[in-house]
Parts: sequence; structure tokens; C-alpha cells
Amino acid sequence: MVCQMKSFLFLFIVLVLSKTVISARKPSKSQSKPCKNFVLYYHDIMFGVDDVQNATSAAVTNPPGLGNFKFGKLVIFDDPVTIDKNYQSEPVARAQGFYFYDMKNDYNAWFSYTLVFNSTQHKGTLNIMGADLMMEKTRDLSVVGGTGDFFMSRGIVTFETDTFEGAKYFRVKMDIKLYDCY
Amino acid sequence: MVCQMKSFLFLFIVLVLSKTVISARKPSKSQSKPCKNFVLYYHDIMFGVDDVQNATSAAVTNPPGLGNFKFGKLVIFDDPVTIDKNYQSEPVARAQGFYFYDMKNDYNAWFSYTLVFNSTQHKGTLNIMGADLMMEKTRDLSVVGGTGDFFMSRGIVTFETDTFEGAKYFRVKMDIKLYDCY
Amino acid sequence: MVCQMKSFLFLFIVLVLSKTVISARKPSKSQSKPCKNFVLYYHDIMFGVDDVQNATSAAVTNPPGLGNFKFGKLVIFDDPVTIDKNYQSEPVARAQGFYFYDMKNDYNAWFSYTLVFNSTQHKGTLNIMGADLMMEKTRDLSVVGGTGDFFMSRGIVTFETDTFEGAKYFRVKMDIKLYDCY
Repeated sequence: MVCQMKSFLFLFIVLVLSKTVISARKPSKSQSKPCKNFVLYYHDIMFGVDDVQNATSAAVTNPPGLGNFKFGKLVIFDDPVTIDKNYQSEPVARAQGFYFYDMKNDYNAWFSYTLVFNSTQHKGTLNIMGADLMMEKTRDLSVVGGTGDFFMSRGIVTFETDTFEGAKYFRVKMDIKLYDCY
Repeated sequence: MVCQMKSFLFLFIVLVLSKTVISARKPSKSQSKPCKNFVLYYHDIMFGVDDVQNATSAAVTNPPGLGNFKFGKLVIFDDPVTIDKNYQSEPVARAQGFYFYDMKNDYNAWFSYTLVFNSTQHKGTLNIMGADLMMEKTRDLSVVGGTGDFFMSRGIVTFETDTFEGAKYFRVKMDIKLYDCY
Repeated sequence: MVCQMKSFLFLFIVLVLSKTVISARKPSKSQSKPCKNFVLYYHDIMFGVDDVQNATSAAVTNPPGLGNFKFGKLVIFDDPVTIDKNYQSEPVARAQGFYFYDMKNDYNAWFSYTLVFNSTQHKGTLNIMGADLMMEKTRDLSVVGGTGDFFMSRGIVTFETDTFEGAKYFRVKMDIKLYDCY
């Protein structure tokens, strides 16, 4: 009888413990607790408005005329990424990829790019894609993969437009939250 | 002796139970049991064939002449997505992204886009990419990430062409199966 | 007393066993042990330099003049993929997607594409994206999803340029390592 009670107790303990162990990698999956989190600033300086020396991106298509908000303008970029708001600070990464405008009655964009880290602190890449819903204060894109120090990472990047200087320059705050870390 | 047998019994029960618990997130990984599954219809109305008022997509490049099947035609879209086949139904999402044709001896396409949900029922996005092998009755693309209600989701989208009206309009049935839900 | 010791023993065994079971899918996550690993060769034959008969890719934009390294040249491809270095060998897959050049002071590229397998050995797709840092001997891109035989796969593709014949032809060795297999 005592034995049976003890056994029940053990059954209970074991189940509790195994649940704990099982959920060990779960917390990072909750939206509140990323396993890595850092904020970076992305700077886009447009060729044609600025010169070859300064420009870091260039349009490669002309908007075909579907509305008045640059629908169909595709921009390829190799943009500096810094930890503060100064685009002349030493970049901690490059953002290499493209975006295009895709709405006929307002400004709206879509991004796919790689953050390339090559410093003493971080080596590796994060691959990112998603809609940039420019009318929202913040919008979420997906980190769909990573390499090097970010091997197999996944997560969310929250965009927030930090400044917009006409067609020449804009800066986006990127809040990067990784929920799969290895 | 009775005690030992009981203990063996508990060992067995615990193992069975823990396997059940452990595999709790596994079943969703089998190809037969998505954790979320819904069917949506995607409507593409081409600018130039239809007018600014109706069009939801536009070509931004001209096919360079590699074969006769529009190889290299790149289309950017902000297309309505509905739960029935009527493109004038209230959209439950927008599909924002691009596709291009990429075969010289037949029609074949490649897609990368975001499903943007913004209704009382769903808020968030699904990010999707993959080959659209148009000669197959159905073809699978990858859901590579999600945000909001679809936080960190992954899965498969099965395309099936529902109708094709020349260069002006086509409709694709998208059977969305998520196997990673949080 | 004997009963209690036995129970402790069982507790120990059960915990060890459950840890083993739980970590069963972990080893594949280490960078050293992919669950699938194979090497393929990608062949790109450019239209305009070669003719319609031979070409498997075509540029769809003109570089806008940001530097002298084809910044902004976007190429769409349906390229053969083989297990040896001969581009005329029977392809084991097609690589369908695009790349573009994106650096103003050196050659550098960015890829997004699908490996389409359709043989007796493999049916299905792998979806891949990432920066192709051409100045590095090897560089890693992300496998962000898969379908069919590669259902829900994730991993890394390591690129290594195998040969480069001017603007007409290049061959890349792709070392594909999957760390999520189902």
C-alpha cells in the first residue's frame, strides 16, 4: 500500500519532470521571449537621386503606371546596417537584396534580403522576407533562415520607419528577434 | 514481488505516456495531419489587359525572347484572396509579391509572396515561395514563415489552377496546410 | 525499503530514457551532422551570349550604372543540375529562380530559387535563398523549405564556384546539407 502510494508519487514526479524537459526548448517559441534580440538600422541611399559614390541602391525597373505610388518599381540594394542612426557609422552588417512597391492607392513595399555579418562579433547571415506594410507604424517580416553564427535561425524582424527624406534616403529600424537558436 | 510488478507496470505506463507527450508536437509533422488547414482563392487581374481600376498586378519586365512562353516576364501583384471563387467577394487577405515565367518550351512560373491577413478573424502574415510547375495538376510551394496569428508558422501551399482567361485573369486555388503552429 | 530503491532506480531509468527520446531529433541540429547531404552541380548558360537552343537563363533588366560590376542585372533561370561536372549529363534536378548582381565595387550576387527533383530517385522541391558572396571561396545560403520527398526540410547550401567562362557559362558546386528531415 505504501509502495503503491510511493509509486504514484513517482509517476507524478516523473511526469512533471518529463513535461519540464520536453518544454525546455518551448519558451523561446513564445512571442515574449526571443533567444536572441537586437536592434539595427538600415540605410537606403538611392542612385540617380544621389551619385555613385554615395548611393547604395538602384531601381532596375520603371513603374508601369498602375496608380501613382511607384507600383512595380524594383530596387536592388547593398545597404549599410548600423547599430545607431548615423548612416556613416561603421556598419555591423550589409543588407543585400531587393524591395519593390506594390500598391496602387498608397505606398506599400515587399522585401527579400540577407543580412551579411562579417565582424569580430558576428560572422554569418540572416535571410529575411515579407511584406512591408508602410501604412502601419510597425510591421513584421520573417527571418526564414540563417548561416554561420546564425546557423538555422528563424524569427521575426519588426520594421519601423525611422526617417524618410524624399526619394533620396530612408532609414528603417529593424528589431530582430530570433526564436530558434542553435 | 507485487511491488516489483507494479513498478514495471508504472515504468511501462510512464514510458507510454511520455512518448505520447513527447510526440505531441510530432503528429503535425506527418504529411497527413496539418495543425491548420484552409483553402483560399487567389485572383490575378493583369494591368494593360485590364485597366487601372480593375487591375491588381502589372508586368515590370519584357520577356527577352528565350522561347515563346514569356520566359523572363516578371509580374508584381497585390491580389485579392477570397474564400470562394468570386473575385468580387470581400477579400479575407491580400497576396503581395511577385511571380515570373521561367521556361523556354512551356508555361512555368515561380512565386514569392506574402499573404496579408487583416480581418477580425485573422491578423498576421504567411510568407511563401516556390516553383509553380504549371504543367502539373497540383504543385507544392513552401510556407517559410509567419507573423501575428501565424507566428513562426511553416507548411505547404498546394496550388491548383482554377481558371485561366487568356492574359487578363487567372484564379488559383491555394490549399494551405500548416505543420508548425505555435 | 527495497521497493523504494527500486522505485528510485525506475525514476532514474525513465528519466534517462525520456531524455534520450527527447533529444532524438536534436543531433541533426548540430552543424556537423546533417540528416541528408548531397553534392550537385548547377550550370548557367546565358541567353544573348549563347543561343535559344543552348541557353538556360536570361537577363531581364539592364544594370543602371551603379559601378562597373553589373549591379542591378537580374537573371531568371531554369538551369540543369547534375551530379557531375558535365552540363550535358542527364539532369537530376532543375534549378528554377533568379539571381542578381548587387555590389558596386566588386562582383557579388543574391539568389532565390527552387531545386525541382523529378526522377525515380527523388520527387519534390527544395526552396533556397541567400547572398552569394562571390569573393569568398565558399558561402552559405539557406534551405528554407521543401516539399514531396523533402517535406518541410531546412538546411544549408554551400556554394563554391567551380568554373567561370566569361559571361557565357558558369558552374557552381552546391553542397546541400539538410538538418531538418521528416
